[in-house]
Amino acid sequence: MRTRAAVAVQAGKPLEIMDVNLDGPRAGEVLVEIKATGICHTDEFTLSGADPEGMFPAILGHEGAGVVVEVGEGVTSLKPGDHVIPLYTPECRECEYCLHPKTNLCQSIRETQGKGVMPDGTSRFSTLDGDPILHYMGCSTFSNHTVLPEIALAKIREDAPFDKVCYIGCGVTTGIGAVINTAKVEIGSRAVVFGLGGIGLNVIQGLRLAGADQIVGVDINPDKVPMAERFGMTHFVNPKEVEGDLVPYLVNLTKGGADYTFDATGNVQVMRDALECAHKGWGESIIIGVAPAGAKISTRPFQLVTGRTWKGTAFGGARGRTDVPKIVDWYMDGKIEIDPMITHTMSLDDINKGFDLMHAGESIRSVVIY
Amino acid sequence: MRTRAAVAVQAGKPLEIMDVNLDGPRAGEVLVEIKATGICHTDEFTLSGADPEGMFPAILGHEGAGVVVEVGEGVTSLKPGDHVIPLYTPECRECEYCLHPKTNLCQSIRETQGKGVMPDGTSRFSTLDGDPILHYMGCSTFSNHTVLPEIALAKIREDAPFDKVCYIGCGVTTGIGAVINTAKVEIGSRAVVFGLGGIGLNVIQGLRLAGADQIVGVDINPDKVPMAERFGMTHFVNPKEVEGDLVPYLVNLTKGGADYTFDATGNVQVMRDALECAHKGWGESIIIGVAPAGAKISTRPFQLVTGRTWKGTAFGGARGRTDVPKIVDWYMDGKIEIDPMITHTMSLDDINKGFDLMHAGESIRSVVIY
Ligand SMILES: NC(=O)c1ccc[n+]([C@@H]2O[C@H](COP(=O)([O-])OP(=O)(O)OC[C@H]3O[C@@H](n4cnc5c(N)ncnc54)[C@H](O)[C@@H]3O)[C@@H](O)[C@H]2O)c1
Ligand SMILES: NC(=O)c1ccc[n+]([C@@H]2O[C@H](COP(=O)([O-])OP(=O)(O)OC[C@H]3O[C@@H](n4cnc5c(N)ncnc54)[C@H](O)[C@@H]3O)[C@@H](O)[C@H]2O)c1
Repeated sequence: MRTRAAVAVQAGKPLEIMDVNLDGPRAGEVLVEIKATGICHTDEFTLSGADPEGMFPAILGHEGAGVVVEVGEGVTSLKPGDHVIPLYTPECRECEYCLHPKTNLCQSIRETQGKGVMPDGTSRFSTLDGDPILHYMGCSTFSNHTVLPEIALAKIREDAPFDKVCYIGCGVTTGIGAVINTAKVEIGSRAVVFGLGGIGLNVIQGLRLAGADQIVGVDINPDKVPMAERFGMTHFVNPKEVEGDLVPYLVNLTKGGADYTFDATGNVQVMRDALECAHKGWGESIIIGVAPAGAKISTRPFQLVTGRTWKGTAFGGARGRTDVPKIVDWYMDGKIEIDPMITHTMSLDDINKGFDLMHAGESIRSVVIY
Repeated sequence: MRTRAAVAVQAGKPLEIMDVNLDGPRAGEVLVEIKATGICHTDEFTLSGADPEGMFPAILGHEGAGVVVEVGEGVTSLKPGDHVIPLYTPECRECEYCLHPKTNLCQSIRETQGKGVMPDGTSRFSTLDGDPILHYMGCSTFSNHTVLPEIALAKIREDAPFDKVCYIGCGVTTGIGAVINTAKVEIGSRAVVFGLGGIGLNVIQGLRLAGADQIVGVDINPDKVPMAERFGMTHFVNPKEVEGDLVPYLVNLTKGGADYTFDATGNVQVMRDALECAHKGWGESIIIGVAPAGAKISTRPFQLVTGRTWKGTAFGGARGRTDVPKIVDWYMDGKIEIDPMITHTMSLDDINKGFDLMHAGESIRSVVIY
């Protein structure tokens, strides 16, 4: 079939909107009509050329929601008409990782996914001239139709609005999941969140949901304050306005250090500050941000020997097929909010504007509605 | 009273054996006759001058066992004749740390302990000329008699031999505790232990006690192999004999990475290797070793984002008054071994020989018997 897509033709160039060919689903695969997709920093990271594993031409996008159109042979858990959210972290429920209680990093299709192809080693996308176009993160939601493995789709309720719940495909789950799955924050905790962008805001609402007593937000951009307060931030700190060092300032503000700290900036110096303002004896620091290629975190080992723990999280530690439908329910039940974070919507033809807004720091989330 | 002690008069100089004055116990304090003391790397670190917080003159030693001679006003949990192990990490059971479920780092007397004095701000030790001599880690077990706060003494059973259980005052508890308190290793785990010295051997026997399936020991000194095997090591790796990089070699040996890894070397490059050979998704790496002043650990944040956890441990996460008597029981019941690790014993007059043996890498533990 033919479908319309925004193609990343080359690193550092704007996406090109064009018709592409899409082959039907093979065994274990599902054809999905994408109804809406968010534009995430990870798409931008790859498009910019900064991602050393980026490959072109490819169809980016990994934060979508849509409807099943057709299922391939052997697909049993989904049928045409089902509403779904694509999962860049799949959940096969059979691999060593899925069967391990401590991780969500299903590895069953990791290798082919990393190469931009389906599990059988081939791509479903091609140009009208027949040249292959790669998939991206196993999702490619910047195409109106896409093919995914069955294990990479979470089935969700049908009354959930696509243009909102698409955000659960990455940002919402990453932020909330970092709090509830990775850190397992307890009621009454004190927390510090570095970076009040799309991820940081979701960490903040995850902390509110988890019953944290103190939620300190740290950002160099004070424009982020009103939205962060709306999602539950109790104290704001602008590092540029702190006299002296930031870490002792935050330790003092949290009465000895925070129980949990989160990096949602991707800056390795911030990651160190986040670790060091965690409480001696029991503070845990969770890295969410993705650092530039080759960048390293560092600290004195004494920080760990005296009881701090350094962790990271991918997709918020969530097992997509199991957890994403629950988060959709929380949204529909009003336990979490998404609408105010979707600051801009646009058609696929205008998708590059979404990237411009991100660069300008003006959007929290731009969503493309097909 | 007068007692005999080995005094660290100056950084980098051998200890001087001499008679010193010891004041009796004040309120909340206890006078203990030390019967035996181990010589640990931390004593050496301070004596050498490498410890930036080292102060002189002081009476070192923090791994002892002895008998209560006299108790000060208000002491209720101990009486003359009780057998005790001094605790450099006390347990007051009242401070914010003791009341927190995730830490053993009682802070109630930390400040004065760090300054080499008793909680009231003064030292009980002085030269025969009346010049004050500092305490060390709140213990000063290199003196035949010493004064400690009540909260820094674990009461142990009376049939336990002092010259063996003194080692529980630091090395044994640090190694075994890292496994059972900090890592909480599960039955069937795979583990890698870097450094097969006095601490590493105790990590190994802790892993055996915890039911680990695979216990890989890594050391640049192959002389350590027989003893490590005796304590439970199942595989030995000498980094000097590995072709190519050590990390992928260990990942392969542990079938994808270890569930738990431990640094017991104090080398920051080893700490990085230990983290990186932990299993993607769920591997945890525990830093036990104490690094040189100013040294930093580093890695790519991706190592954590893909599910590894970096932790540290002090005194094996043990709460001394509660846990040390249990470990003494385990020794008496034959659940753990200590005797083969005590490779040398000597009198106080010969204590400097213990440091020489340590420098030569010939001893696991030297114990001074008073
Ligand atoms: N681990 C995962 O699974 C996962 C998933 C999605 C995104 N991410 C990563 O999370 C990070 C945040 O993404 P986002 O969409 O929220 O980005 P964003 O640009 O919307 O937000 C980043 C925020 O950090 C602030 N900031 C930048 N430098 C700072 C500093 N030195 N101190 C304090 N604040 C600073 C910015 O002002 C901004 O508000 C990115 O690195 C992204 O790649 C990780
Ligand atoms: N965290 C704590 O509470 C605590 C308590 C006591 C001791 N320690 C620290 O634990 C560490 C170990 O103490 P120990 O008494 O066992 O020391 P040790 O000298 O007896 O043993 C160290 C071992 O590491 C080996 N080693 C050195 N460099 C190596 C390398 N690059 N690769 C592999 N092996 C290497 C040595 O050959 C030796 O066998 C020290 O740093 C000590 O200060 C920590």
